[in-house]
Amino acid sequence: MPAYQSPQRDYEFVLNELLDWSKVNGLPGYEHASPETVSAVLSEAGRFCADVLAPLNRNADEEGCHYENGVVRTPKGFVDAYRSFSEGGWVGLSAAEEDGGQGLPYSVLFCLEEMVSGANMSFGNYPGLSRGTYKVIREHGTEDQKKKFLPNLASGIWSGTMCLTEAHCGTDLGMMRTKAVPDSRGAYKITGEKIFISSGEHDLTQNIIHLVLARLPDAPPGIKGISLFIVPKFLVGADGKPGQRNALRCSAIEHKMGIRGSATCVMNFEGAEGYLIGEPNKGMRAMFTMMNMMRIVIGVQGIGLAEASYQVARHYSKERLQSRSGSGVKNPEKPADPIIVHPDVRRMLLTMRAYAEGCRALALWTASYIDISERHADAKVREDAEDMRAFLTPIVKAFSSDAGYEATNWGVAVFGGHGFIREHGMEQFVRDAKITQLYEGTNGIQSLDLAARKLALNDGRLVQAFTRIVGEFLAASRNAEGNPVVAALGKAFDDFATATEYVRGRLDNNTDDVGSAATDYLRMTGLVALGYLWAKSAEVATRAGADNPFYRGKLVLAEFFAAKIMPQTASLLQTIKAGAAPLMAMTADEF
Amino acid sequence: MPAYQSPQRDYEFVLNELLDWSKVNGLPGYEHASPETVSAVLSEAGRFCADVLAPLNRNADEEGCHYENGVVRTPKGFVDAYRSFSEGGWVGLSAAEEDGGQGLPYSVLFCLEEMVSGANMSFGNYPGLSRGTYKVIREHGTEDQKKKFLPNLASGIWSGTMCLTEAHCGTDLGMMRTKAVPDSRGAYKITGEKIFISSGEHDLTQNIIHLVLARLPDAPPGIKGISLFIVPKFLVGADGKPGQRNALRCSAIEHKMGIRGSATCVMNFEGAEGYLIGEPNKGMRAMFTMMNMMRIVIGVQGIGLAEASYQVARHYSKERLQSRSGSGVKNPEKPADPIIVHPDVRRMLLTMRAYAEGCRALALWTASYIDISERHADAKVREDAEDMRAFLTPIVKAFSSDAGYEATNWGVAVFGGHGFIREHGMEQFVRDAKITQLYEGTNGIQSLDLAARKLALNDGRLVQAFTRIVGEFLAASRNAEGNPVVAALGKAFDDFATATEYVRGRLDNNTDDVGSAATDYLRMTGLVALGYLWAKSAEVATRAGADNPFYRGKLVLAEFFAAKIMPQTASLLQTIKAGAAPLMAMTADEF
Repeated sequence: MPAYQSPQRDYEFVLNELLDWSKVNGLPGYEHASPETVSAVLSEAGRFCADVLAPLNRNADEEGCHYENGVVRTPKGFVDAYRSFSEGGWVGLSAAEEDGGQGLPYSVLFCLEEMVSGANMSFGNYPGLSRGTYKVIREHGTEDQKKKFLPNLASGIWSGTMCLTEAHCGTDLGMMRTKAVPDSRGAYKITGEKIFISSGEHDLTQNIIHLVLARLPDAPPGIKGISLFIVPKFLVGADGKPGQRNALRCSAIEHKMGIRGSATCVMNFEGAEGYLIGEPNKGMRAMFTMMNMMRIVIGVQGIGLAEASYQVARHYSKERLQSRSGSGVKNPEKPADPIIVHPDVRRMLLTMRAYAEGCRALALWTASYIDISERHADAKVREDAEDMRAFLTPIVKAFSSDAGYEATNWGVAVFGGHGFIREHGMEQFVRDAKITQLYEGTNGIQSLDLAARKLALNDGRLVQAFTRIVGEFLAASRNAEGNPVVAALGKAFDDFATATEYVRGRLDNNTDDVGSAATDYLRMTGLVALGYLWAKSAEVATRAGADNPFYRGKLVLAEFFAAKIMPQTASLLQTIKAGAAPLMAMTADEF
Repeated sequence: MPAYQSPQRDYEFVLNELLDWSKVNGLPGYEHASPETVSAVLSEAGRFCADVLAPLNRNADEEGCHYENGVVRTPKGFVDAYRSFSEGGWVGLSAAEEDGGQGLPYSVLFCLEEMVSGANMSFGNYPGLSRGTYKVIREHGTEDQKKKFLPNLASGIWSGTMCLTEAHCGTDLGMMRTKAVPDSRGAYKITGEKIFISSGEHDLTQNIIHLVLARLPDAPPGIKGISLFIVPKFLVGADGKPGQRNALRCSAIEHKMGIRGSATCVMNFEGAEGYLIGEPNKGMRAMFTMMNMMRIVIGVQGIGLAEASYQVARHYSKERLQSRSGSGVKNPEKPADPIIVHPDVRRMLLTMRAYAEGCRALALWTASYIDISERHADAKVREDAEDMRAFLTPIVKAFSSDAGYEATNWGVAVFGGHGFIREHGMEQFVRDAKITQLYEGTNGIQSLDLAARKLALNDGRLVQAFTRIVGEFLAASRNAEGNPVVAALGKAFDDFATATEYVRGRLDNNTDDVGSAATDYLRMTGLVALGYLWAKSAEVATRAGADNPFYRGKLVLAEFFAAKIMPQTASLLQTIKAGAAPLMAMTADEF
């Protein structure tokens, strides 16, 4: 298995050539993030991921996490790797400089997240959750809470979690039962059981800061009666150091299909001391700060796995000799040709790469809107960017995780039967990728978020913004007559416009039609978004000169995507327009 | 997790109502296989699978097989279950009565194979390989070999294997190195290492009969120099009993993504005594007897897993309460509605079921052609049936295993995050299903078999036979004006005809175009085959009366398949016609 290599050149292409980095670099507080600085940071991160994290990945899967009497031990090597990772400043890459972070844009953080996921996705879930916890406290915490928690989260000396799910409620958090009762000192006693808590307990940090959703005694029922609390594993003393153990414990860890090095914990809060963060009963709003960020991270995890699997499959396809090319012997001195001569093997490899690179562009495009929406001086520009962020987030999450799952499955297929054997690592990519379709809101939920919620928001302003961007690109490319990528995008865009009209027309009175179309509609939107980014990439590559192999690769990939993947919109339009009738005809008993 | 239930009613529907059972029942030697007898046999088999095999499935996955010093121990309970299974006559269900078998048609055997796979796929691989070994010896063995090996294979006292793959050659068996040297007594000394040998070593039977592909000293190079040998683990004495240990051993078992209860062995032949079966250098032909049968079995394994996963997902979707129906509260006395009210959950469930039932019909349709091709008194009828068998085999194998993989993945998605947890068993179905896309020729190879080989065979006679059947059905259904299933089939059939013309037109001079289209072409053909069988099912159901819930279910499923799955042919036609250029543009170095 070849060593993982970070896609450094592609980050530079996307950030500096495809997107306009000056839009991020020009934001207040990001002036230091020059292309040179960003390249140096990413290059250093890539080395760390390749040298330190990737070598631990296979064993972490075999060994898993260890649970004994409330204590969780991470797989061999994680403790040392985490120490180096946090000391290198990687946990706090996008944390504010005043908190001891590096103050770099999200556009840079998501590159790091991708590399960590490609090298060792299980490991990435420990610092990943901390960054979300940091962000929630930074945006919703009191000055005292910020002072108490942010520096140690930014440095990685402490870590964080998000405690949402309970056994009987995941998607439907309105049914939550965990209770928060005020104590006499302005704090709260938290009681309840949370499940599926990533990094809920482990041996990497001195303290763990849980963000816990719970109900106040007088809370209204449902989702509008949920508040958010900071619940540290060790109460923080006046000296800012972890002191007394809080009344919470990890009662079990899950045995999972994948990400076996990531501790997924059942957490029991037994009158644990917690501190309200944000307003009472407005906990979901605060938590969405974290969830919106984590949804991008999950999409990016899929991209990292697609890239990693592609690298190994590519290597294997050049080494493995099997059968002769149909168009004549390519390797006469050997008993067979390398399998990369076979069109169907190329189809699999190109699919993997078109997804990895296309979804990377999509995620970083979305990240640039996060940065602009948070930092731009002009409120209108911030609002416009926030529209695009909100529209693209479910697509990054669901489309990229689906693409990552599909890509890692093709990676197994390139290996044939050998892909099924654990030691080669190809099947681990599949098992790790599976969770990205499920956690942080299943991809079904992402689709509903897009089709039922985001399309309706502000009278359709979000989808109109997206449509305008793609439409203007197509209009500007009109003189690119005969360009097959632009032509294919135009066709897909027409399908998308028709589908959007269909779904929007049913938002008010036909929610079952919307729900029936949602998964196909998200996929179609993702195909158009990737098609737009591939067409733009091809345009950039043409300008830069296709005699350079890197740019030539972009052109070939764009044409591949246009010819072999984007045409899926034709069928999706038909299945979207089929409506709810074929789904709702059966009674529940008849299933 | 609800107990596995065999789809008894659906077997009866497919065999007796959808297909014409009298065509099989009327074959010489199958007169005893009356519908009543078959129903009784299947019902008994279903009970056995549910009561004995299914309860062992989860533990077998956790425990795996044990290897120590050449000895393989199967998971807990397999030894006893296998004893009951073989004593019940299930190993020899389709073996000849003169060998002690039950002499039932393949159409019945594949129902059994599906149930076994749904209940415990790992277990099924032990008797499954024995049946293939039996068939090869029965069709290609000498009278002496038949007498020596068949009765004990049919009874299940001994088991069998097929030893093809070596570390450096899987698809391309022409590179095989295992050697066979004649000894002085008319036997051969076999030397070489074989990998990926399912059931190569285990503790279930008194003897293991390996079918080994190897090269004779004077063999021509490549695939035309391969011969087939019977190589028993224990040499069979004059008394017909296992005697001296042969010079072969299992040197390791593989650690795999799934089917962890099925022993996948590295087998070392160290001058082992073997007996030539069939003609020298014609080993591949004899082995194809087994491979053609096993390819149907693999497709059927996918169906079994789809069915099993569907049953659990269906149960969960009625129990799990989460959110309210978009079209109004359905379950006011509870805090939420069962998730089966949500259109996207129904889409997943219906997809699973449409695949399971559609692929079942396809597999049994194909099985009926096997039975007819082997038994019919009229040579022309046999030949026609053999054409259809040859055409449909790669589709059953690849389309059904892809469908099984997709379905089991939807099964996980219905469970959300809980699907990722091992104890629920949903992710095991996925891991078990994965191998069906890879072994017995990867699905990429199946696609090439269909597009490059079967389309070319006998001047296109095979695809013409298939086209005639679907075309005649459509012509006869013309008065079913406005029937959405027939209309959708007609559209898909047009796409298929165009695609077939495209691929056939390139068979001679444009093999890369054929290779580039192959995977999409197989999928399209499978969609048309399923569409035809669903349209026919709907026709039967309409005639039988849609006030009966079973028939109403068939009608709804047919319309679902027509509206939500069959339209994929529109996009596939575009990607097929895109040709090889987008795949071949890059040099190997540029990947």
